Amino acid sequence: MATTSNQATWIWYPGDYEIWLGNRMNNRRTERGAFFPPFWKADSHYVTVEFSTEVDLAEAEEVEIAVEGIFNIKLDGKLQFGMPSKFLLPAGRHNLNIKVWNQATPPALYVEGKSVRTNSAWRVTYEDKEWIDESGKASDTSATIYASAGCWNFTKEQRPSAYTLCREPLAAVAVEEVTGGRLYDFGRETFGYVTFAGVEGEGEVAVYYGESPEEAQDTAYCETLDRIRFTAEEVIDLATGMAAPRGELYTFNNSKAFRYLYVVCQGVTIEQVGMAYEYAPVSYRGSFKCNDEELNRIWEVGAYTMHLTTREFFIDGIKRDRWVWSGDAVQSYLMNYYLFFDSECVKRTTWLLRGKDPVTSHTNTIMDYTFYWFIGIYDYYMYTGDRAFVEQIYPRMQTMMEYVLGRTNRNGMVEGMTGDWVFVDWADGYLDKKGELSIEQVLLCKSLETMALCAALAGEEADVEHYQQLSEALRSQLKPAFWNEAKQALVHNRIDGVQSEAVTRYANMFATFYGYLTPEEQTAIKSSVLLNDAVLKIVTPYMRFYELEALCVLGEQEAVMREMKAYWGGMLREGATSFWEKYNPEEQGREHLQMYGRPYGKSLCHAWGASPIYLLGRYYLGVKPTTPGYATYEVRPVLGGLEWMEGTIPTPQGEIYVSVTPHEVRVRATAGEGLLYLPGQADPVKIEAGVDRVVAY
Amino acid sequence: MATTSNQATWIWYPGDYEIWLGNRMNNRRTERGAFFPPFWKADSHYVTVEFSTEVDLAEAEEVEIAVEGIFNIKLDGKLQFGMPSKFLLPAGRHNLNIKVWNQATPPALYVEGKSVRTNSAWRVTYEDKEWIDESGKASDTSATIYASAGCWNFTKEQRPSAYTLCREPLAAVAVEEVTGGRLYDFGRETFGYVTFAGVEGEGEVAVYYGESPEEAQDTAYCETLDRIRFTAEEVIDLATGMAAPRGELYTFNNSKAFRYLYVVCQGVTIEQVGMAYEYAPVSYRGSFKCNDEELNRIWEVGAYTMHLTTREFFIDGIKRDRWVWSGDAVQSYLMNYYLFFDSECVKRTTWLLRGKDPVTSHTNTIMDYTFYWFIGIYDYYMYTGDRAFVEQIYPRMQTMMEYVLGRTNRNGMVEGMTGDWVFVDWADGYLDKKGELSIEQVLLCKSLETMALCAALAGEEADVEHYQQLSEALRSQLKPAFWNEAKQALVHNRIDGVQSEAVTRYANMFATFYGYLTPEEQTAIKSSVLLNDAVLKIVTPYMRFYELEALCVLGEQEAVMREMKAYWGGMLREGATSFWEKYNPEEQGREHLQMYGRPYGKSLCHAWGASPIYLLGRYYLGVKPTTPGYATYEVRPVLGGLEWMEGTIPTPQGEIYVSVTPHEVRVRATAGEGLLYLPGQADPVKIEAGVDRVVAY
Repeated sequence: MATTSNQATWIWYPGDYEIWLGNRMNNRRTERGAFFPPFWKADSHYVTVEFSTEVDLAEAEEVEIAVEGIFNIKLDGKLQFGMPSKFLLPAGRHNLNIKVWNQATPPALYVEGKSVRTNSAWRVTYEDKEWIDESGKASDTSATIYASAGCWNFTKEQRPSAYTLCREPLAAVAVEEVTGGRLYDFGRETFGYVTFAGVEGEGEVAVYYGESPEEAQDTAYCETLDRIRFTAEEVIDLATGMAAPRGELYTFNNSKAFRYLYVVCQGVTIEQVGMAYEYAPVSYRGSFKCNDEELNRIWEVGAYTMHLTTREFFIDGIKRDRWVWSGDAVQSYLMNYYLFFDSECVKRTTWLLRGKDPVTSHTNTIMDYTFYWFIGIYDYYMYTGDRAFVEQIYPRMQTMMEYVLGRTNRNGMVEGMTGDWVFVDWADGYLDKKGELSIEQVLLCKSLETMALCAALAGEEADVEHYQQLSEALRSQLKPAFWNEAKQALVHNRIDGVQSEAVTRYANMFATFYGYLTPEEQTAIKSSVLLNDAVLKIVTPYMRFYELEALCVLGEQEAVMREMKAYWGGMLREGATSFWEKYNPEEQGREHLQMYGRPYGKSLCHAWGASPIYLLGRYYLGVKPTTPGYATYEVRPVLGGLEWMEGTIPTPQGEIYVSVTPHEVRVRATAGEGLLYLPGQADPVKIEAGVDRVVAY
Repeated sequence: MATTSNQATWIWYPGDYEIWLGNRMNNRRTERGAFFPPFWKADSHYVTVEFSTEVDLAEAEEVEIAVEGIFNIKLDGKLQFGMPSKFLLPAGRHNLNIKVWNQATPPALYVEGKSVRTNSAWRVTYEDKEWIDESGKASDTSATIYASAGCWNFTKEQRPSAYTLCREPLAAVAVEEVTGGRLYDFGRETFGYVTFAGVEGEGEVAVYYGESPEEAQDTAYCETLDRIRFTAEEVIDLATGMAAPRGELYTFNNSKAFRYLYVVCQGVTIEQVGMAYEYAPVSYRGSFKCNDEELNRIWEVGAYTMHLTTREFFIDGIKRDRWVWSGDAVQSYLMNYYLFFDSECVKRTTWLLRGKDPVTSHTNTIMDYTFYWFIGIYDYYMYTGDRAFVEQIYPRMQTMMEYVLGRTNRNGMVEGMTGDWVFVDWADGYLDKKGELSIEQVLLCKSLETMALCAALAGEEADVEHYQQLSEALRSQLKPAFWNEAKQALVHNRIDGVQSEAVTRYANMFATFYGYLTPEEQTAIKSSVLLNDAVLKIVTPYMRFYELEALCVLGEQEAVMREMKAYWGGMLREGATSFWEKYNPEEQGREHLQMYGRPYGKSLCHAWGASPIYLLGRYYLGVKPTTPGYATYEVRPVLGGLEWMEGTIPTPQGEIYVSVTPHEVRVRATAGEGLLYLPGQADPVKIEAGVDRVVAY
């Protein structure tokens, strides 16, 4: 949530800090010692912005001013001398404008007085259009576009450009002498900066990182590595050339993902190899426990996977790509609502993924990822009730949608054009990407609906109608274009107006939980598609997320429970300590490590692997908001074969605790008005805030 | 011109270095100790770009690599370890890609080997779209938009981000003890960093800058000032808070414009007050001499005015605004072609003025300045023949014109909308800015013609037709809309379809030299407007530039000569050592210093004050290119009342020397094919390169 208290906090142009910080995040990826930035346009902050507020003071007030950048102060339009760190505001009504220039990091401002304090109520603009005429008269500046200032929770001392995650030292749990060096095992998948203590001698050290012992010891193919040189005086990073004075402890410059380290020394000995574990200081507000220990373990490993990938932003995987991807992020958001409820990370990620105008490609270059970006914003609003964010980001939703609509065909549908990556999913089998894909049209339709909803929140009435017309026009075409009566399914695509014969799960899943199918069609696709083994199987936890969600919506929690135990339990049985980018139960041994034509290309800690976090909270404990921000919500518990379960769901105002046995449901909520739906009972039971409610059924 | 030799030079994304350097330039303005950046959007560089080239080497070649930023190297798509300063390219055909990230300053690259060297032949992109599929196969990257790399003339040691102008020490020519301090006179208008040598004691010093002695001594109203404090150890700039260790010589942090300094010390004594004069190392390739010493002095002061305002960019004035303004710049370009022929400065200024997409306002927020921006590009092409630049900037011309066309009314005309500054000129008298101004339509028409010409150069055939249609449609409306038969003139504006009664000079002048009027109309407006004292007089050298140009086009060189001597000679008689922003001969004493409601608001060194440089070269010596880059040119000398004149006109390939008496013309040109038109002779005389040609008439 935006800072709503009257605490002073650092402010900036909305989205700018996020984009800048995101570049730092995305650009920490390395591949075998090479810097590896994203292949899409990286945007940057506005270098000059003006912050302003109106004050009305009973008495004069001295304010402290801290700025990241070169700045000036205008009081009632009059420039003040220099860049003071304290400034006396006179009593009465005044306009205070502070203009900041900073090329390297986002212009940021902190003002703190008895009553005048920087927060999201300040305005900010990147062009003030304040020209004067020859007589010195100020122009009409009514064309200047102001935004509400962006902010987070930074205190005066926490300069935004100096932000870092938390670190704590962690030791290896096992060390083994192996050919040529030592193999360190940190016990589970982890992330941070390797540290060396007690180094003697001069020479070079190579560190090979591995999510598996195989990877760490395969010096020719491991995905990441470091080489450093100890001289008498310095430690030199041989990839970057950066040198640091030699001291008691050497900490590597860049964080890496690993469980295993293979360390090879030439000319030096190292007393202790450790790490500075790096993490986001999130709270585990969500919880889940049940009678099935395997399921409990799945939840725990899912939560840990989420923690490792919840950082400055929600990233895909910690070894690779360490980038922010929209399709991955939108799932992280949903899991996050049932685990950390870190709204700030959702907002940061949404800003970063959007970047700045002009739009020159789809989000992350991927057509479907553009659509997930839209959809994630309305999800955010439903879970948090944060309308201010929707208002703030709405102009960039508009320009993104203009880009999309500029690439539709005469049917108002999207087809992959040059430069569009039509991703859908990684599949073990042929996936046609040509023509009008049904899944892409379903996602576009939902995106247009999202635009209409958000336009209403932003008070843009004309836009509401515009987007509603477009979404209705597209939706009315979906079934004529893709429904195949013989197959009782939406087909995969249509090329030059001709429906293909192929059926895939994707559009059928999404059309189910978006409510685009009739009850009869839903029932039909359950057997014709979702539970039909002849249809191309899904081998990523990414798409299993939606597949299992669709089955839950269709009331198949028992089947989904079996799938969760088989699939995620399967990874645990393979030794996973975090969930993977891809898992095909039919593969064996080292096959589980390879991807992208590389023996260790696969990420073994991938956010999209953690979907049970979401499924268990939303479709078993059964909690979801029914009006924005959990003002009202429903609890619709389904044991799905379990004997009992209990858990906590975070909301903006507190937690909802739910405990379920086959005969009794207990609910306790800090705030909001809930409705408890029980199996076989037509009318829901009301849940009041602060009241411990136990209902037998 | 772009570096065409095979010398290695630093390269960057075209326009990015210029925009970054421009922010540094524009943001050096201060007003009474306050930082004063522009009020329009400041853009920034792409933070991540990829440079690439293809090499074909007979033998392996080691190249040196220098980079501003974090970078990686890909050889044939394969990432290489680290960020090496030397790299061995194997023999044979290879693709070399170097990707650079830099938030603070533009990503820049320098590669130098025996044959492989960075220059404008390298390609660069800000999004490479090089995704891979699950098998590791690279995507189709045909959608990636590449540009030719931008460059200037930087050698390896000259890192682009460290670029500075030249400096040399300069002493005051007179010192006077005045009440409270000392008044230093540097003899003429100048620009640089004040220096203090031999400072004793501790305390504060205030420096008040003046273009006039009145300004320097008016501590409450002078436009710029500095305050510093000497402690035992340090010198502290009291405006910025920056501290420097105290040494023998203290140099101020920011350059200022002044002729006079009023220095007030408290607690300290200063042995020597001097300055580090800062200047662009341009060559005075153009020259002019004649029998009239006043005119020679006008040319010299004009040239010095141009030198002071020709810096990293062409700025308006050196005291104020020290900003880059399009309407001012387009005149500087023209003067520059007859003086320094510094093509790089024209290109840099053009890039900076345009900035990046999206376009959110007119250039400098001024409608007419947008049009001058277009027009200046074709001028540049005619004088330099640099088609590569037109190709490079054409995409930004397109998006700028899209912005303009998105703001036209149903007549295809522009009217001032909210946020548009309709400037035209500073006038002593009422200037209506409402409705369709004739001058703005004339400038838009010329801009559309420029678009068609540049589209042809960029090979965009469809665009040629599009812009031609638009310009013809607009041009056909100009006379029906604005020509008033009774007044024999284009009227000033039209509001809601109703022609106004007011006649101003602007549209009539421009329509004359753009050839939009018939010979009869031209003759008519000469007396009805241009030489008619009842029409609102022009009081800026800025518009006098065009007014006198129009008269020259109409063959009125003798009248223009009288005007030049009266107007610019008038400023000299007022003691000008550089030409002013505005000059109304009817004003007296201190009235000459005031503007914008401030007693010293007027700039006394303004580039647009130097127009005789252009007029004398183009309309008296009479030299202009007739095909791009002076491949062919004409010399059409007009003495305009002088007894003799001689001068040199720079061209891309050398100089054209012209000497004229009433009976004889001498021409000598290094290159190109010239035609010499003599008064009263129907056929021109051919001028061959390298041949000294003396023609009697």
